[in-house]
Amino acid sequence: MIKKEIKIFSPATVANVSCGYDVLGFCLDTIGDEMTIRKTDKKGIVITKIEGYDLPFETIKNVAGVSALALYDDAKPDYGFEIEIFKKIKPGSGIGSSSASASGSVFAMNELLGRPYNKTQLTNFAMKGEALASGCEHADNIAPGIFGGFTLVKSISPLQILQLPTPPDLYATIIHPQIEIKTSEARSILPKEISLKNAITQWANVGSLVHALHTSDYELIRRSLEDVIVEPFRSQLIPYFANVKKMALNSGALGCGISGSGPSIFALSKGIETAKEVESAMKAVYSQTEIGFHTYVSKINVEGMKIIQK
Amino acid sequence: MIKKEIKIFSPATVANVSCGYDVLGFCLDTIGDEMTIRKTDKKGIVITKIEGYDLPFETIKNVAGVSALALYDDAKPDYGFEIEIFKKIKPGSGIGSSSASASGSVFAMNELLGRPYNKTQLTNFAMKGEALASGCEHADNIAPGIFGGFTLVKSISPLQILQLPTPPDLYATIIHPQIEIKTSEARSILPKEISLKNAITQWANVGSLVHALHTSDYELIRRSLEDVIVEPFRSQLIPYFANVKKMALNSGALGCGISGSGPSIFALSKGIETAKEVESAMKAVYSQTEIGFHTYVSKINVEGMKIIQK
Repeated sequence: MIKKEIKIFSPATVANVSCGYDVLGFCLDTIGDEMTIRKTDKKGIVITKIEGYDLPFETIKNVAGVSALALYDDAKPDYGFEIEIFKKIKPGSGIGSSSASASGSVFAMNELLGRPYNKTQLTNFAMKGEALASGCEHADNIAPGIFGGFTLVKSISPLQILQLPTPPDLYATIIHPQIEIKTSEARSILPKEISLKNAITQWANVGSLVHALHTSDYELIRRSLEDVIVEPFRSQLIPYFANVKKMALNSGALGCGISGSGPSIFALSKGIETAKEVESAMKAVYSQTEIGFHTYVSKINVEGMKIIQK
Repeated sequence: MIKKEIKIFSPATVANVSCGYDVLGFCLDTIGDEMTIRKTDKKGIVITKIEGYDLPFETIKNVAGVSALALYDDAKPDYGFEIEIFKKIKPGSGIGSSSASASGSVFAMNELLGRPYNKTQLTNFAMKGEALASGCEHADNIAPGIFGGFTLVKSISPLQILQLPTPPDLYATIIHPQIEIKTSEARSILPKEISLKNAITQWANVGSLVHALHTSDYELIRRSLEDVIVEPFRSQLIPYFANVKKMALNSGALGCGISGSGPSIFALSKGIETAKEVESAMKAVYSQTEIGFHTYVSKINVEGMKIIQK
């Protein structure tokens, strides 16, 4: 058998998007992992290289390995796969690091297998890897990476992903303060019960944001990017969050909130110039502190996963 | 001054639409009030005729009068208006009876004044009348009547109404069992706090329904018409609700739920044939009981208010 390999870009993603806790997400373009997946004569899944961050090589302890195994056990090919991971997204950054690993391996394997699976099925396999990282299966980071653009996870069981339209001039700014927030802590800080009044505000905003994406109504995006449920709690875990948000909005951002469970903070803007001004404003806040940070400006990536080399 | 008058149709409406408690609504076509509004030399608002149901003639005690006064006090014309109400929608039916009265007077006055107000402003005036009936200002029945089609009340203060697209082949079936549910009771039965888990399900459904309306995806409408928050409580106030819902879904309805705060029950179907089969199925349930009922089948009314005669 002739060996065949593929190198892919697995993008970082922003989950929740202020009003859409646990259901909404969007895909980034300028930050993501790279992975090379190679067919091997020997059956099974082997991780042969990990660069960038220190992650387990043992297949069943690596999120990319676990999702790969889920697909592999279903496809039952008469060959195996080697995985090389060039990790660019820092684990625990809140921009879908584990999702990118989990999604990248199954996306690439599906290509090498001749695309037997659709995007929802790939999401399902990737969720097995994500569960290793976060303790429970969720898809709000996986779906935007695999589908591209904005996605809505309508339900997990059965898995239903909706691909929402992306207005043409929408850019994201991300600042990743170099602090650690455990996903478990970010989850446990949330109340189990919320007021019906706040819930109504939130679902009005979700409906309104979906409508705004369909109509490319940037002002309505601005008015919909509000989170009365999660942000009041989780923002306490991110030093200077309120300052960053205030500065981002003052610089023209349509909205600003916590990316996933944090600590990264995202903003959405109309146009790259505004997105860059928002980046400068965010940088200015953390520059005056002891906390290190990275920033990214990215067009919303409507394509999602990309094949770099084949 | 030459007297000038207008006769209008003020449609019945369905609020909440299963997943969208307090924010979503749609407009009906085959049931609604008629009203004649006439310019008079004498300043002020006078209700000169009420047919159909026994409602107060005193302007400040009549919802159509109160909303009319709100507009009148803002417009300050040098003439007055007479209102004749031909009430067809039974008060307390759950299909926006008070909203139709409140909206009809301001819509007609705006026409006679030369349309100085936009639809959001009319909604605002109508909310003053609605508040007389329900004790608080809300717009989830008023907005679909004034805007037509499906609407989302993004917020009350400031008032923001979104007009959502209506798929071309969507029909509503309504059954109005002749029982009385007080709006106050329907509100007080609801919990003040809900689980975050259920809230997430609900806002996923709201987002998904808005997406489905934009894409005319009838199957997604079906999957989105679910209410895990309000229906479990309010359905207890409507005898045979579970049977009606089951029969409606078995007959091909996309979804079935409580219209507003009840007791009317609505279903949405693709195509008029299915909507009529759903009507027969709903009738069959209540025919076997002591409870009287009325049913209506209606295309979704994308126009809203209509001028009958001018």
